[in-house]
Amino acid sequence: MYYSEDTIIALATAPGTGAIAVIRLSGKEAIATTAKMFNPRDKTTDLTRVASHSIHLGWLVNGGEIVDEVLVSVFRNPRSYTGEDVVEISCHGSRFIQESIVQLFIDNGIRHAEAGEFTLRAFLNGKMDLSQTEAVEDLIDSQNKVMRDIAIKQMRGGFSNDLQNIRKKLVHFASLIELELDFAEEDVVFVKREDLLQLVDESIRYLQPLITSFQLGNAIKNGVTTTIVGAPNAGKSTLLNALINEERAIVTDIAGTTRDTLEEVWVIEGITFRFIDTAGLRETSDTIEKIGVAKALEKVAQSSIYIYVFDASNKTVSGVISELKTLPRDIPHLIVANKSDLIPESVVQNIRNSELQHYSTTGEILFISARQAETASVKKALLQLIQADALQSGQSIVTNARHYEALSRAKQSLETVKQGLRNNLSGDLLSVDIRQALDAIGSITGEITSDDLLGNIFKNFCIGK
Amino acid sequence: MYYSEDTIIALATAPGTGAIAVIRLSGKEAIATTAKMFNPRDKTTDLTRVASHSIHLGWLVNGGEIVDEVLVSVFRNPRSYTGEDVVEISCHGSRFIQESIVQLFIDNGIRHAEAGEFTLRAFLNGKMDLSQTEAVEDLIDSQNKVMRDIAIKQMRGGFSNDLQNIRKKLVHFASLIELELDFAEEDVVFVKREDLLQLVDESIRYLQPLITSFQLGNAIKNGVTTTIVGAPNAGKSTLLNALINEERAIVTDIAGTTRDTLEEVWVIEGITFRFIDTAGLRETSDTIEKIGVAKALEKVAQSSIYIYVFDASNKTVSGVISELKTLPRDIPHLIVANKSDLIPESVVQNIRNSELQHYSTTGEILFISARQAETASVKKALLQLIQADALQSGQSIVTNARHYEALSRAKQSLETVKQGLRNNLSGDLLSVDIRQALDAIGSITGEITSDDLLGNIFKNFCIGK
Repeated sequence: MYYSEDTIIALATAPGTGAIAVIRLSGKEAIATTAKMFNPRDKTTDLTRVASHSIHLGWLVNGGEIVDEVLVSVFRNPRSYTGEDVVEISCHGSRFIQESIVQLFIDNGIRHAEAGEFTLRAFLNGKMDLSQTEAVEDLIDSQNKVMRDIAIKQMRGGFSNDLQNIRKKLVHFASLIELELDFAEEDVVFVKREDLLQLVDESIRYLQPLITSFQLGNAIKNGVTTTIVGAPNAGKSTLLNALINEERAIVTDIAGTTRDTLEEVWVIEGITFRFIDTAGLRETSDTIEKIGVAKALEKVAQSSIYIYVFDASNKTVSGVISELKTLPRDIPHLIVANKSDLIPESVVQNIRNSELQHYSTTGEILFISARQAETASVKKALLQLIQADALQSGQSIVTNARHYEALSRAKQSLETVKQGLRNNLSGDLLSVDIRQALDAIGSITGEITSDDLLGNIFKNFCIGK
Repeated sequence: MYYSEDTIIALATAPGTGAIAVIRLSGKEAIATTAKMFNPRDKTTDLTRVASHSIHLGWLVNGGEIVDEVLVSVFRNPRSYTGEDVVEISCHGSRFIQESIVQLFIDNGIRHAEAGEFTLRAFLNGKMDLSQTEAVEDLIDSQNKVMRDIAIKQMRGGFSNDLQNIRKKLVHFASLIELELDFAEEDVVFVKREDLLQLVDESIRYLQPLITSFQLGNAIKNGVTTTIVGAPNAGKSTLLNALINEERAIVTDIAGTTRDTLEEVWVIEGITFRFIDTAGLRETSDTIEKIGVAKALEKVAQSSIYIYVFDASNKTVSGVISELKTLPRDIPHLIVANKSDLIPESVVQNIRNSELQHYSTTGEILFISARQAETASVKKALLQLIQADALQSGQSIVTNARHYEALSRAKQSLETVKQGLRNNLSGDLLSVDIRQALDAIGSITGEITSDDLLGNIFKNFCIGK
């Protein structure tokens, strides 16, 4: 359904006017069709016979009419992005010229590429696996170093190789178990159950950190909605301003990272935190204010993480705990004691060691003076909340929801296999769950695929890739 | 001042996110600096030794960190756009990656290019003359076939060669006349005055159509502001709608041609007419309406051309003439008799042959029924007004105000030489005017140039070209 033998064309560079633009063709007719319309500067050049990876200057002509002066790059299959014959035409960057050239080729029997169709062909021709094609798209979308590094890692193989290893071993066991079924009457055993258990355990141990990494991966990809919440005058705005002012330089350094207004976004070590403002929490009988507090709690409930701030110079531990009890405990959150510069060290110690620490996701109270812009501990704790230390460890990080879902399904099936092994389940029942795990793993790299799956993945690609 | 020995870099493709982007370097260090940071897929590749016009796949690295997987194209001097060593890096089209790569090279001693600096180097290295560099910029800005064809023609030489021929001959005469001055006491004559007169006449005959073509060239480049004016109910809006409806398909066919709203722009054979609406003209004592009429006349005065429409079924020739007398006669304009389907042929003939025809720039009255959308004659006449027939004749068309101004100056100086020859002026006086004509002509192609002139031309280029 998706793969076809025809030749496709699309603009490969960003839309709009530039000094130059690049138009890409892929397929059997790419070189011959270009040659028909190409008038090389060097008259001895025959595009259909030139070496792969060579560049040729000349005029693109439509009958007697000159369309543009262009550079033509030729890539011969399989040494190309798609694995097919590829031609790249570097033309003058006027939109009119770009469109004229694409139209000229369409008039000569070339088809306009669908979104992601070049990369789809690269996959279908075995140039990369499915997770690598998704990494290409992530790389094009990458807005900072962290996103780029993760995408490049996955493009170069990443966890694909390990998954393929696991898959191979599981396939081996599954086949043997299925072989047992063929000899069911003889009651032979080809698979040592303890070997299988060991492999399943090993596989789960490999999958678990990948699954866990998605929380971070998703935060990196989509940003982290972060609510600052607390009583009026606890220092929410001061904390926010302190964080933003320090990070503003970083934000503006990288063009295109901030789609929202500067005031609402911080980028800390490549991770985008999106700030959500809230009204101060307090018990009140005023109807309007009650609505404000209810709205604040609603925003907290919708955020990925929240920072609860209180005024350490003006609040008891029990008062803080009763406020914290109105907030969701299952959403990762920090507890920040502000204005610590106004209280003696003994009080700090009392608060630090109080019951309060158990209410924090990180297990500790952060003492700061937002007024004095001491926010380093908060930033560190924010990164800790989304487990950003995985970035330093060089561990593979899953940023793709499809991979996360498939990895979770694989793990679940393997847990069922494990349970079955413990319960001495028969081979035919074990086999079903192993097959499900295999399907899930195979769908990540594309060994198991369907037109629907491919359609869903590639429709989100940009045209020309 | 402008030319320097250092190596420059800039994004060459349109800004924004695309499947790929191309970053261009030019200068002595282009290849060596790229090679330092390039980790080729084929380990035997040494970028500093590869052939010109060859492409190489690999990783761009910054120390141990991978910046992107890229294709590197190498062009060796003088076989490059600038005439210097040029490297083009085709990277993934994320803005972050584009900026990282440019930054990486800047960190390694490469300078960010100024606007138009690649093309400036092409000029300074003799790859093209000054009018050709301007044609490159026009080509990048071209929004339709007409603009593109004119730019390509000029890029391929256009009127440059003829101008250079004229210049050579004038230089020859000027030197001989100046030689006469050295022998002034001997009263010798090296230059036959009738030969010089013949050359000057020939040159003026060549320059005049180029100068005249600027009216069309400017219209093509900047669009033609066109006012439709006439009494209330003459059919102004009906005519406008008829023109627009027919042309709408053409307008929307070419993305980017219409910066204004569709309703205000027609593109006829590649020329953009920008419509300006006016209130109906009529004698009135109503203060508000008087202001409306005054505004309409003001708009007419500011437009490049106007179309005067009257209701032929409801207006006498003398009534029309008294209305026309309120309009500027020196702005090119059409006279359109609308509702011609409502009057007998004899009345049409009477109007056609009346005094009225002398009020039209084209010397004729156009009879139409705007209601029946018979607008072909109006469109033809509009094109006639801006002398668009030159497009078909293959004549060179000047679109650049700088060229127009220089050509006009050259012609003026040559007219003065001619006058001087008739008045038997002495060689030293003739020589001054010939030199002025030479300067003017030389400034077009860049034989005569200055840093100021170059600065003015290239500051309007896009970065990366």
